[in-house]
Amino acid sequence: MRYSAEEPLLLTPGPLTTRASVKAAMLRDWGSRDSAFIDLNADVLRQLAALAGDPDELVAVPMQGSGSFAVEAMLGTFLPPTGRILVCVNGAYGDRMVQMVRRHGRNVAVLEQPENQPNDVQALERMLAADPAISHVAVVHCETTSGILNPLADVAHSVARHGRRLLIDAMSTFGALPVDARQIPFDALAASSNKCLEGVPGMGFVIARRAALAATETQAPALCLDLFAQEAAMRMTGQWRFTPPTHVIAALHQALAEHSAEGGVAGRGERYRQNCRILVEGMRALGFETLLPDALQAPIIVTFKLPNDPAFSFDRFYEALRQRGFAIYPGKLTVAPSFRMGCIGALGASEMKAAVAAVGEAVAEMGLAMPAAA
Amino acid sequence: MRYSAEEPLLLTPGPLTTRASVKAAMLRDWGSRDSAFIDLNADVLRQLAALAGDPDELVAVPMQGSGSFAVEAMLGTFLPPTGRILVCVNGAYGDRMVQMVRRHGRNVAVLEQPENQPNDVQALERMLAADPAISHVAVVHCETTSGILNPLADVAHSVARHGRRLLIDAMSTFGALPVDARQIPFDALAASSNKCLEGVPGMGFVIARRAALAATETQAPALCLDLFAQEAAMRMTGQWRFTPPTHVIAALHQALAEHSAEGGVAGRGERYRQNCRILVEGMRALGFETLLPDALQAPIIVTFKLPNDPAFSFDRFYEALRQRGFAIYPGKLTVAPSFRMGCIGALGASEMKAAVAAVGEAVAEMGLAMPAAA
Repeated sequence: MRYSAEEPLLLTPGPLTTRASVKAAMLRDWGSRDSAFIDLNADVLRQLAALAGDPDELVAVPMQGSGSFAVEAMLGTFLPPTGRILVCVNGAYGDRMVQMVRRHGRNVAVLEQPENQPNDVQALERMLAADPAISHVAVVHCETTSGILNPLADVAHSVARHGRRLLIDAMSTFGALPVDARQIPFDALAASSNKCLEGVPGMGFVIARRAALAATETQAPALCLDLFAQEAAMRMTGQWRFTPPTHVIAALHQALAEHSAEGGVAGRGERYRQNCRILVEGMRALGFETLLPDALQAPIIVTFKLPNDPAFSFDRFYEALRQRGFAIYPGKLTVAPSFRMGCIGALGASEMKAAVAAVGEAVAEMGLAMPAAA
Repeated sequence: MRYSAEEPLLLTPGPLTTRASVKAAMLRDWGSRDSAFIDLNADVLRQLAALAGDPDELVAVPMQGSGSFAVEAMLGTFLPPTGRILVCVNGAYGDRMVQMVRRHGRNVAVLEQPENQPNDVQALERMLAADPAISHVAVVHCETTSGILNPLADVAHSVARHGRRLLIDAMSTFGALPVDARQIPFDALAASSNKCLEGVPGMGFVIARRAALAATETQAPALCLDLFAQEAAMRMTGQWRFTPPTHVIAALHQALAEHSAEGGVAGRGERYRQNCRILVEGMRALGFETLLPDALQAPIIVTFKLPNDPAFSFDRFYEALRQRGFAIYPGKLTVAPSFRMGCIGALGASEMKAAVAAVGEAVAEMGLAMPAAA
């Protein structure tokens, strides 16, 4: 049976369903100081940097842990003690960045929008013009709290025009939506092995302008999260400072080969856009309503409003789908009760159609009175 | 062929050679908020706490990253801003702890011994008596820089007698040498998935006295490294705060089952002691000299002095062994030129004998004039 309750497909923002070939790359042990691993690791980092622009100007610095470790390492390493950062917030990941820089004892300003509205670039312009102390701006490319696509290019150009520096949380978009340093000026972006690159979870990475990273020595609030030191050690020895997740890196190496074979960022993004279309159209045909209009929807994860029917229970809905082989995700909104379904990972048109069909069965099983489809 | 240059056995302090069954546990994807994973994770944490004493008094808090992330999280979470920590140093891992607390802006004192001498408990006593500002002591159980076993029980009782709090780096011993909170008073110890538990690398964990952890809210210098918040979230939701390395945890779950089947700490320790004996006796028979006398040697990793022969080159020696299927480790000593060979991981008597035989072949190949065996 293709779709099984035993190992459901993961329609989530991650950890995701990955290909069997990617997981199979974890079936060997690597010595972290052996030349075979050093070569594999260098190849991964070169490929990551090349995905974000000119590898002569950029350097990919890996970070053990998860995407959030890479984000915190980026914020902690790049923001100097004397700096002030403006964080654009319209969901939990923007909010988490605020908590991080506060924990580091750094000076922070917040530009907040509701979760169903994109970052407000005009308000950003006004804040930058009014507050010359702001040295850095942080933005989340796709805020998976809602699934919204933020206006990254506009934010980046505004920040550059005002002579400030940009740090990007590109966690859930990197590898599927273009973020190229030749078009979008930034000092650093953070992403992970386990989102659109379709590796397994266990590491993040930061892609930095070499010139910007060179000015960050000893700024990080923790030794482990120090990207300057991580990059310096790797440049000198080819090795991670502290034990690397060797199996996770081997899986990412395989995942990058498959990303390239699929046509890189363009090919990966096209599959996800098709997945998203199938999901949204199918769910609307069943009477579900998306939180966001299509123009604001990133092809990463979709938020659906809960059916307005007392017979609906998220736990029962989750279990009905899980029994059919699909794990979905609870909502994270403060603005409306909701659930989420992801479009990323090793999923294609047939999996998305099967997921929609399973939702239809769950609706019938629960006896929900759905509104007529639009 | 059992021993292959393609995938050499890892005679290192980690990453280590792991069993095929442990790696095979990584061949499925888990949803991190799905009940199947929540149950698996809870089972891992219960088992870890039980290995260190009474699970009612202790709690295991996992930390993404590596062992060093767990150590830094422990130091950062447990040492209050007003505290002062005395770090016992006789190698690179003690020294790394000093760097960590300095980076956190905390107040630190150092008790340093040469790398081939254990922590000096009498000097510790004198420092604790003389300096009432010292609130915490940190110690490394086995310092893999040399392979030395530090006098953990004596240190712990001295610290307790003086009413101070102990933090232990038990990275390279946990699971093979007993560290039981009922005998050895401590507030927290840090270890990892990938040492004596024989999982794959990608996470560490801290085992803490519940009462001690309860007093640490917001003390950590970084959100990701905050063990108080990690434990609180896990207690309330069963979930990690940030994406967990699901495959690594599944591998650790399998590794713990095999640890238990081997007889737990006693059984694992016995195999390593035998491995160490075979290695040391075999190498001495070939004319190699250990850095440490047997009484100070932990059965984890052994430091050998470099042969005093101009024909010896570590790089050639490494390659000769690697071609025969064994990856060894460079020395890390400042006191003497050396190399290291580990006794831990999925290795037994036949692998250790084969490793010694390979060293004999390498010695012959390089034409080394070894001193007569003792």
